Order: sequence, then structure tokens, then C-alpha cells
Amino acid sequence: MLPINIYLCKMIEDKNETRTSLSELGEFGLIKHLTQNFGIQHKSTIKGVGDDAAVLEIKDKNILVTTDLLVEGVHFDLSYMPLKHLGYKAVVVNVSDIYAMNGIATQITVSIAVSNRFPLEAVEELYEGIHLACKTYGVDLVGGDTTSSTRGLLISITAIGEAKKEDIVYRNTAKPNDLLVVTGDLAAAYLGLQVLEREKRVFEVNPNSQPDLTNYTYLVEKQLKPEARKDMVELLAALDVIPTAMIDISDGLSSEILHICTQSNVGCNLYEEKIPLDPQVISTCEEFDLNSTTIALSGGEDYELLFTISQEDFPKIKGNPHLTVIGHMTDESNGVNLVTRAGQQIKLTAQGWNALLNK
Amino acid sequence: MLPINIYLCKMIEDKNETRTSLSELGEFGLIKHLTQNFGIQHKSTIKGVGDDAAVLEIKDKNILVTTDLLVEGVHFDLSYMPLKHLGYKAVVVNVSDIYAMNGIATQITVSIAVSNRFPLEAVEELYEGIHLACKTYGVDLVGGDTTSSTRGLLISITAIGEAKKEDIVYRNTAKPNDLLVVTGDLAAAYLGLQVLEREKRVFEVNPNSQPDLTNYTYLVEKQLKPEARKDMVELLAALDVIPTAMIDISDGLSSEILHICTQSNVGCNLYEEKIPLDPQVISTCEEFDLNSTTIALSGGEDYELLFTISQEDFPKIKGNPHLTVIGHMTDESNGVNLVTRAGQQIKLTAQGWNALLNK
Repeated sequence: MLPINIYLCKMIEDKNETRTSLSELGEFGLIKHLTQNFGIQHKSTIKGVGDDAAVLEIKDKNILVTTDLLVEGVHFDLSYMPLKHLGYKAVVVNVSDIYAMNGIATQITVSIAVSNRFPLEAVEELYEGIHLACKTYGVDLVGGDTTSSTRGLLISITAIGEAKKEDIVYRNTAKPNDLLVVTGDLAAAYLGLQVLEREKRVFEVNPNSQPDLTNYTYLVEKQLKPEARKDMVELLAALDVIPTAMIDISDGLSSEILHICTQSNVGCNLYEEKIPLDPQVISTCEEFDLNSTTIALSGGEDYELLFTISQEDFPKIKGNPHLTVIGHMTDESNGVNLVTRAGQQIKLTAQGWNALLNK
Repeated sequence: MLPINIYLCKMIEDKNETRTSLSELGEFGLIKHLTQNFGIQHKSTIKGVGDDAAVLEIKDKNILVTTDLLVEGVHFDLSYMPLKHLGYKAVVVNVSDIYAMNGIATQITVSIAVSNRFPLEAVEELYEGIHLACKTYGVDLVGGDTTSSTRGLLISITAIGEAKKEDIVYRNTAKPNDLLVVTGDLAAAYLGLQVLEREKRVFEVNPNSQPDLTNYTYLVEKQLKPEARKDMVELLAALDVIPTAMIDISDGLSSEILHICTQSNVGCNLYEEKIPLDPQVISTCEEFDLNSTTIALSGGEDYELLFTISQEDFPKIKGNPHLTVIGHMTDESNGVNLVTRAGQQIKLTAQGWNALLNK
């Protein structure tokens, strides 16, 4: 596991480190340099980096493809996001989408655009994180593109995965009376970001301050080094449960529930008291005077899996500490509601983090 | 075919056009809005846009994957690149990599990052070009990501293709005595760029000037609306020729020959007098006082295919107007040489356009 170090610009600004200009290697040299130690883990990877395209051979399987674009200043802030963590997280958010289909991620392509403020060592650190994620999740790096940008860093990753046709779980297949289940707990990643942004403001006022993150380790780790729930896909297979619908939680619980309901033409009752929260989430919400339910609904970046199962599968998941039933699906006419601790029904709206409004 | 219109900022700056803020639609609304008319062309596309990942089903075929990242200010200049052309070209450069494997492109994902200087109409125009390219090349748009950028426009495309295992052509399988063949002609795209940049400078001095591009139509079209050589992959199949090695010409002939030679451990003699050039290339090189051979070697962006064939296949391609034999492969010890019109041998170096140095 990566240590959680808060760099606060150290990596970029430390003038004592060795620097190698990216242009010394050239584009092809850079790609080769960065990817030479990646290796190949899948028999299906016939050809990885080094030709016009990667070649994958997969029989009797369906192929899954997903892609994400991460932009400096929009999706991440390098003043508290170490590049190694960023590389790791960029892979995580992509393979998470493959797991959300109940598939297994097998390959990724990674494209980056970097301005010349980044030395080779910075890009290497980014790729260290990408490499670690490849090993952790068992995916092969099979291609990519490296170019310059006029400003900042940008990462585009495409993940490819596979699954048996009958195992793939879509968003649009939830049924009324299905149970709504979430893995792990929610809201920690968003609060981790709030903590880091507070420390950044403190640092900007007093650059000699050292942040004390002892009380926020779980939150900060969920923000800086989230994990995709490959383990939950494996757990569901071991429990012999195929969800009726599934999605990963990238934009916030509210937004993801609405995706499932809209695409499946069903309603939902979500129970506030059932939403799983870590004790650090509860204490930090009190400290920041935030409502933990609002954060769980709208915070985003949890990368937990949200899925529906038919009621007859309930005994298989009952009591499992990783899985929490947080509601049930209904007829579409019921609408999509939060049932509060006080028993009130409140219509859910997509307050999820919106990339286009976040600018 | 798209008309060649030189917009010179018109699209971005024309205040009379209707504007819709991107944030009005939100990210999901925008993706849906932009992709709703794309449709599905391949039986292998089980699920396109709208879930966590696309699902492809392909039996008895190898899968090809390639990706490219295009950055405003590095790869394109919107003052003379209309957005519709840009969208078209972004697809072309990706599917070109699939054809360079002797495969057929089947799906693409498209991710874009846009600053809020772009109204919806601009993004729509970009997607019109993407859509046209999808239809022209018979590929399905199966996913993507849309986000904001702090500055400028960025496009990341991943193309997926398929081919029978025995038909795939790599870069590292050329043999001594193989013939070196190129499709179409070279150097036009680079010269088109020079013409457009000259017109831009004229426009900056006198915004009322109207560029006269009558003498440069072929060059400008090769720059603004290049085509990938799917037709050549089909022609090779019809001629029953499987190249021994193949690559597409994105960075310049010199760089691509060196890729084949380095990866195949062979040498090459390239004959200057054989390099195919359009008459507009020759006349414009004279006008700009440029050496046409240098431009063909280093210009880039031609997106023609460069391949090697065994000598016994020569009768199959002999006299074909689309294919020109420009040299032959040798033992590695011979090195990689340009044989000039005067009979001199000059060692080839990778002077191809380098994305990282171009900044």
C-alpha cells in the first residue's frame, strides 16, 4: 500500500531533486522508458505497447470498455495529491467502471498530456502509481499516448475488461421490490477532500505549518488512494449472487440511484438510517458542521459499488460486514425518495458532483 | 465530403449565433445530447454509451486497441481548424492505427475536456465531425467522458478494431529484401499547415483579408480533413497481399521507416526519386523554398500506410496507382539510408515531428 504523505507542492518545487527534461527522451523514448517494466499478465494480451494498436484475443467472453479523463485543476490538485497517488487513482476510477459491470478488468491504455513544468521524475512518479495499480488489480498496460500540454497535467485512461455474457450486470435491469445494496461505507472521500483543502489554506498562510492528519487518516486515504471494489465482485461471485443492476459510486449516492431508477423505470425508497458511515465521517461532519447524509448523497468519489438484488438472494448477503441493504426498489409511480430518520419522505434529486459545474 | 471552409475564428467569435451554456445540460445530459443519434453498426456492440462500460462481443477474432490524445495549441489551432473537421480528424488518426495493423476499426470511445469558452454549439459541431467519421469508417461510438478544462480543448479517442489472428500485421516482422511500399502520396499535410499558418499571419495583420486557397486545395484538405486508408486495407485484401510489416505515417516517413527497421532488426534503402508527391506539393515547395524530400521525410500527418511485402508479391501490386514501391529492406548492417537522385547514400535520422519538442 502507498504511504499517505502530504506533499504540499514539495515534489514539484524541491529544487534539489535530479531533473531530466522530457524532451531529452522524445515521445517514443518516454513511452518506452515509462512502460518497459510493466510486463504482461493476461494470455489475452497478444501485443501490448509498441505497435500501432494493442492486440487482445478473447474467446467466449464479452469485452468491456470504459474511459475517463482527469484534468488538473478540475479533478485533482497537485498541491496535496502526490503524483504516485494520482496515477494509482486514475487507474482505480477506470477499473471501477468495469467492476460495476460485474466484469474483470484486463487491460488499460494510458494517455497523458504534460506541460514542460513537469520533469521526467514527476512523470515517472505518476507511472509508479499506475504500475502499482496495474499489479494490484491485475491489469496490463497495453498502449497510450504521451504529449505536451500548454498548461497542466491531463490523464486519459481507457480500461478494457471481460465477463461471461450471462454475468454482465447493467444499470437498466432493476425490478420493483429488489433490495438496494451498497458496499463499504460512504462520504469519506469527499470529507477527505475538505480536510486537504483546509490544510492547503493553512499552508498558504503559513508555509512552515505541518498538517496533523491523525484524526482523518481514513478520510484522506479514501480521497487520495481509493480502491476499486474488485474484491466485492469476487465476493458476489463467491456468494453466488448476480445483482439485477449495478453502478459504481463516482458522483454521489443520489446521482447513482437516479441513474438506476431512470434507466430501469423503477422507483426507490432509500432509508437515511441505513446509509453506512465510518466513525471518522460522523466526527468530521460534526467538526465541519456538515450533514453526513447530504455528503453521502452528493459527495462522490467513494468508488463503492451500488447494486440491486432480488429479495430471494437476501439470505446470501445477510450479515455480511461489507454489504449494507439501504433501501428497496418500487414501482416507478412511487418516485425516488429518501426516507429520513424521522420517517419523512423527501424526493431525491441529482445533487451529485457535476464535473461541468465544478469549474 | 466536408467542404473546406477556412473559418479563421469565425465560429468561436461570431456573437450572433445562438449559444447554450454547457452547464445547462450537465455532464450526463451533454453526453446523451451529443451521442443520441450515433446508432450502432456492429453486431459485436452489445452495449454502447449509457452504462459504466461498453460491451463488445467478438468471437474468433483478435481485438485491436489504440488511443490518441489531441491538445489545443499543440496538435491543432482552432483559428483555422473548424471544429467539425477537428472531430473528423481526431477519429481518422485513431482508426488509421487500426488499419496500420491490417485490421478493421469497429468501435471508438471519445473523451473531451472543454473550457467554458466553448458553447454547446461548438461541441455539437465537433461531434458532427466525429459522427461523420463514424459513418464514413463504419465505427460505433461506444463511450467516453466529457469534462471541463481550465484552458482549451482536448480530445482523447480510443479506437477498437478486430482482425483474424493470421491477418494482423506488426511493425517488427519486415525481412531483408522485402519491398518498401507507401500508399497515396506524401508531404501534402505538412505543406497544408504551412499555407494555413501563413494565411493566419496575414489575417492577424489584416482581419478583412479573405484567403485565396485555390492553388492549395489538395494540401489544405490533407491537413484539415485527412482520410485514413481503410480503402487500402481492403485493396490489399482484394489483391491477396498480406504485408510483412506495416505502420501508418503520422510522424513522417523517416521516423516510420526507422520504427520498422529498429523493431524488425533490418536495414533499408529508400530511393528519393521514388517518393510519390502531388504536383501541388512540388509547386508549393518551390514557392516556400522548401525541399520536398525533407518535407516527405519529416513532415508528418499524412496518414498514408507504409508497409513491406515479400518480393514474390510484387506482381500483385505492380502498376497499381495507389501503391508505390519506394525502396527495399536490407540486412541490419547496411543501415537505414536515403539514396538521393544523385546516387548518394545518406543515413536516415528520425526527424519526424516530435510531439514533445513541438511545444
